[in-house]
Amino acid sequence: MADDKKLTTRAEDFSAWYNEVVLRAELADYSPVRGCMVIRPAGYGIWERMQRALDDMFKATGHRNAYFPLFIPQSFLQREAEHVEGFAPETAVVTHGGGKKLEEPLVVRPTSETIIYAMFAKWVQSYRDLPLLINQWANVVRWEMRTRLFLRTLEFLWQEGHTAHTTHDEAEEEARRMLGVYRDFMEGWMAMPVITGQKTDSERFAGALRTYACEALMQDNKALQAGTSHNLGQNFSKVFDLKFQSESGGMEYAWNTSWGVSTRMIGGLVMTHGDDGGLQVPPLLAPIELVIVPIYRTEEDRAQVLEAASRIIDSMTNWERRDPGRIRIHLDARAGVKPGAKYYEWELKGVPVRMEVGPRDLQRNEAVLVRRDTREKRTVSLDAIGEEVAELLATIQDDMLTAARERLDRNSIRGPITYDRFRELMDGDGGFVFAGWCGSAECEAQVKEDTKATIRVLPDEEFRSAEAPTQCLRCDKRATAEALWARAY
Amino acid sequence: MADDKKLTTRAEDFSAWYNEVVLRAELADYSPVRGCMVIRPAGYGIWERMQRALDDMFKATGHRNAYFPLFIPQSFLQREAEHVEGFAPETAVVTHGGGKKLEEPLVVRPTSETIIYAMFAKWVQSYRDLPLLINQWANVVRWEMRTRLFLRTLEFLWQEGHTAHTTHDEAEEEARRMLGVYRDFMEGWMAMPVITGQKTDSERFAGALRTYACEALMQDNKALQAGTSHNLGQNFSKVFDLKFQSESGGMEYAWNTSWGVSTRMIGGLVMTHGDDGGLQVPPLLAPIELVIVPIYRTEEDRAQVLEAASRIIDSMTNWERRDPGRIRIHLDARAGVKPGAKYYEWELKGVPVRMEVGPRDLQRNEAVLVRRDTREKRTVSLDAIGEEVAELLATIQDDMLTAARERLDRNSIRGPITYDRFRELMDGDGGFVFAGWCGSAECEAQVKEDTKATIRVLPDEEFRSAEAPTQCLRCDKRATAEALWARAY
Repeated sequence: MADDKKLTTRAEDFSAWYNEVVLRAELADYSPVRGCMVIRPAGYGIWERMQRALDDMFKATGHRNAYFPLFIPQSFLQREAEHVEGFAPETAVVTHGGGKKLEEPLVVRPTSETIIYAMFAKWVQSYRDLPLLINQWANVVRWEMRTRLFLRTLEFLWQEGHTAHTTHDEAEEEARRMLGVYRDFMEGWMAMPVITGQKTDSERFAGALRTYACEALMQDNKALQAGTSHNLGQNFSKVFDLKFQSESGGMEYAWNTSWGVSTRMIGGLVMTHGDDGGLQVPPLLAPIELVIVPIYRTEEDRAQVLEAASRIIDSMTNWERRDPGRIRIHLDARAGVKPGAKYYEWELKGVPVRMEVGPRDLQRNEAVLVRRDTREKRTVSLDAIGEEVAELLATIQDDMLTAARERLDRNSIRGPITYDRFRELMDGDGGFVFAGWCGSAECEAQVKEDTKATIRVLPDEEFRSAEAPTQCLRCDKRATAEALWARAY
Repeated sequence: MADDKKLTTRAEDFSAWYNEVVLRAELADYSPVRGCMVIRPAGYGIWERMQRALDDMFKATGHRNAYFPLFIPQSFLQREAEHVEGFAPETAVVTHGGGKKLEEPLVVRPTSETIIYAMFAKWVQSYRDLPLLINQWANVVRWEMRTRLFLRTLEFLWQEGHTAHTTHDEAEEEARRMLGVYRDFMEGWMAMPVITGQKTDSERFAGALRTYACEALMQDNKALQAGTSHNLGQNFSKVFDLKFQSESGGMEYAWNTSWGVSTRMIGGLVMTHGDDGGLQVPPLLAPIELVIVPIYRTEEDRAQVLEAASRIIDSMTNWERRDPGRIRIHLDARAGVKPGAKYYEWELKGVPVRMEVGPRDLQRNEAVLVRRDTREKRTVSLDAIGEEVAELLATIQDDMLTAARERLDRNSIRGPITYDRFRELMDGDGGFVFAGWCGSAECEAQVKEDTKATIRVLPDEEFRSAEAPTQCLRCDKRATAEALWARAY
């Protein structure tokens, strides 16, 4: 892929644009293993920052990390009826180990409820052992037929939280709390606004009582399910005999939750913020927040500018002493590559702020800062460069969320809508449609067949329309709930 | 396992002691999957700290993280002749995916040279793309028949560094550099002294030109290979066509290195520092560095002491503002558990410092600090408690390394030794024996057959004896090198 070939634009072909951005920004690459991708350093750097932020949030809410086996005995998966139905068709199965056929095949984990609750059953004796709040960072495998970089791959990286509680209500509270953590992360760090709510039965996690989700709207007006949180009830505790002695002395089954987000979020980030120039990474998640491009003609100038750039970096990193707050800077000192080519490359790679500095700037004790999001330029004094950059990064972070939120609102339709108009919309511009639903799985299935749109969630209260819809989008019967309808990834 | 049952002592049965410590300190547990363990939060917390420290060191030496597929096509593994011979017998093989038999079976990675260098070949065109310095944190699977918690499990967690260079010498320098990083980590963080050196051909990594290793001495006087670093030469670049255009314009094969350490190190930590009271974790790696045990008789006292404990924690965390330096404190506020039981439990779990604080201490504005390593008690003023604890933790970290180093020296034998005496020693006390080797694989194999001891490494210069051995330990022929002989895990 030649670096100088122009990117396909989003308007031309959104899907081609997405693949090109992922590949040319070097976030990921195809691997020789069907459906499995390689996450390259630029992509993995974003994942590392996502992990760090989420992990801090999980720990702040009392969770601890652990690690459970990659392999799950096939019989474990089969114990929870809905669960096996949901996952068995898409498993990878190890039949041979150490040169011999295994007595019982091992499934490569598609998710770890079964193995984790089997272990919980070993560890939990009494109510004093609860709540048990565990998280695992791991790879999982689901045998998908049609794969897309980050969005749907055979193997992906994720975290899966698994908890056990003494009561239904406490589990419910936990499932909701973690949905809130996800939303905070997606909005606060990814600058990606989401609609939260409950899934209908047809989209519920296999084995859950209730599934909650965060749904984001991509620039092609398709929804992306970006994270889910499940109240598992006692479904798994019953089949894995996860019991505890209650305060009153009786034996009860524990109440479980599980919740997860994955490397899929990186795909969501690309499709939320990318533009025809390439990737845009929100500053908080950017492995590089500021790239410095030195401008020079002569070798003498080069030495001078590079030396000045080092001094600028020092002054900036000294300015903000605390490690967590340090600005992540890259100096692009490559010789033989013109500034214009560097600008192009770092725009493609989505670095939030570029600094241009040349001999004339230095004479005036100045540098030029260019925002990736608005491409706005400003000249700033080198005396306060640390503060200037830090402030600009904070502004960009906020502005990216605002822009994404405005786009979401602009592409959301509320209020009465005919089914014909809805079908037109889904075949055309797409977007989020907030409309009534009668509560029947039949209507839901029919809408899917007619339009490929599904109920993404029954939105939480704050996302519902001021006036509750009165009729079902499809059958015109009385609406029992407001639903968020959209085509989805 | 009852908590009040005494631990088996190391002298009684070292192996039973090890398993009990791992299980009762809740570092890990057996899983229902043969040979696979569960790493529990107390163990994973140590691993997280190990990861953080190593990751910082890898990044400081210019490496970036990436992620490659879990599955490797069987044909890839077969391309490098030695590599397949070494790893094929211990692989887990996926033969079915999505309910269908696969055309080509997939191997669950036992190590990732093959898939990674296949990708490198795609990314590297010219010398300007080199060196390529990549690391991966991942799980790997090797089908071991006899497993031990942390030391040898079917699946384990590790990092594998993979690099490509323009010259042999640069690769060699990298392989040596990373061996040095491992040594720095093991000594500086794990307080586990190691002997570094080169492996003989019989213990060389399958596919490497040269393998270097860090060897530590456990308390049962058996060696533990704690980390390895390989100069892979052009072996993999040739079979995966990893070529680059050199500065002079010709096409050349790149030179690779790979290096790895794993969760096995946690086993090494247990067997280096544990005692008959249980685990001892060096402060730098301890998820909890200080546990506060409140002492009280009445409910009124309890409230007062707990409130004071909170104030102490605040003063300590305020004292050291920078996040990375913050002291990791746990307040054991459990009601209904006696202080003595708490002491016993936290000793078992290896927390480096315990603070005891009761009403009388508070009256005197004091608290008692107890070291886990020496069990020494001291009374300190609450006015300078942050400094006191931080200093004590630093002292403990140093003293643990010193103690381990003294033990290693005490159990190392240098100077002339007869083969009979060596055999006696290996059947008895064990330890490290620095003795001559004629260089023949035959002698090495014979020693192994006679004594189960192997050459751990040909030690690096600084570890060699002042007087070089002149004769081979076994055949009495002229020694061509000094070797470190020991039985090993």
